[in-house]
Amino acid sequence: MKHKAINFNEKLNSFSEHWKPKVIAEMNDYQFKLVKLQGDFIWHEHADTDETFIVIEGSLRIDLPDREVTLGKGEMFVVPKGTQHKPYAEKETMVMVIEPKGVVNTGDGDTSEITAENDQWI
Amino acid sequence: MKHKAINFNEKLNSFSEHWKPKVIAEMNDYQFKLVKLQGDFIWHEHADTDETFIVIEGSLRIDLPDREVTLGKGEMFVVPKGTQHKPYAEKETMVMVIEPKGVVNTGDGDTSEITAENDQWI
Repeated sequence: MKHKAINFNEKLNSFSEHWKPKVIAEMNDYQFKLVKLQGDFIWHEHADTDETFIVIEGSLRIDLPDREVTLGKGEMFVVPKGTQHKPYAEKETMVMVIEPKGVVNTGDGDTSEITAENDQWI
Repeated sequence: MKHKAINFNEKLNSFSEHWKPKVIAEMNDYQFKLVKLQGDFIWHEHADTDETFIVIEGSLRIDLPDREVTLGKGEMFVVPKGTQHKPYAEKETMVMVIEPKGVVNTGDGDTSEITAENDQWI
């Protein structure tokens, strides 16, 4: 499994839920996750780490306290650590998230029902 | 600069040399680099870190001691730390490399003329 190319489309075709990141690879103590987004998420932050978003397909708006950043296919953005942010996608959008292993999708200390289970490999 | 989307094609259009990685973003102490590859590189390894390759356009073959992995557009591979590897691209190929800041493209301790200058932002 770890000895062959990891194909994004193949992995994306293997699940359909929104807002549930799936791990596809690890580099040192970081994970590469694919996630399907649609609609609005919640405001949250990660106090100890930056978080990288790369859009594979679709359009992602990241709301920040003082501005918004819109990413299309083939674009990325790094949310600085400790920065409140809220992802939003009008239509279903395919995103790669890169962050240290163990980061919770809804931010530090959150245990709401939209918190996704961590370390879910596909 | 750090407050807007980073567009891969825009960045790729801003340089033309091969085998000279350009930094486009940082996440904690990691860097995202774009590099254009064509032809054969040298065998090398990074003793202390994994190294991630994502193909943006084209086809990249990564030779490893016991096998080879070929990546097309939308595919990735993580070379485990301490593993000898040699990238090869028959035609010009656009690649994103993700690794800790300071990693030398030709491996540990190498100072050959193909060693690229580090931390070159575009």
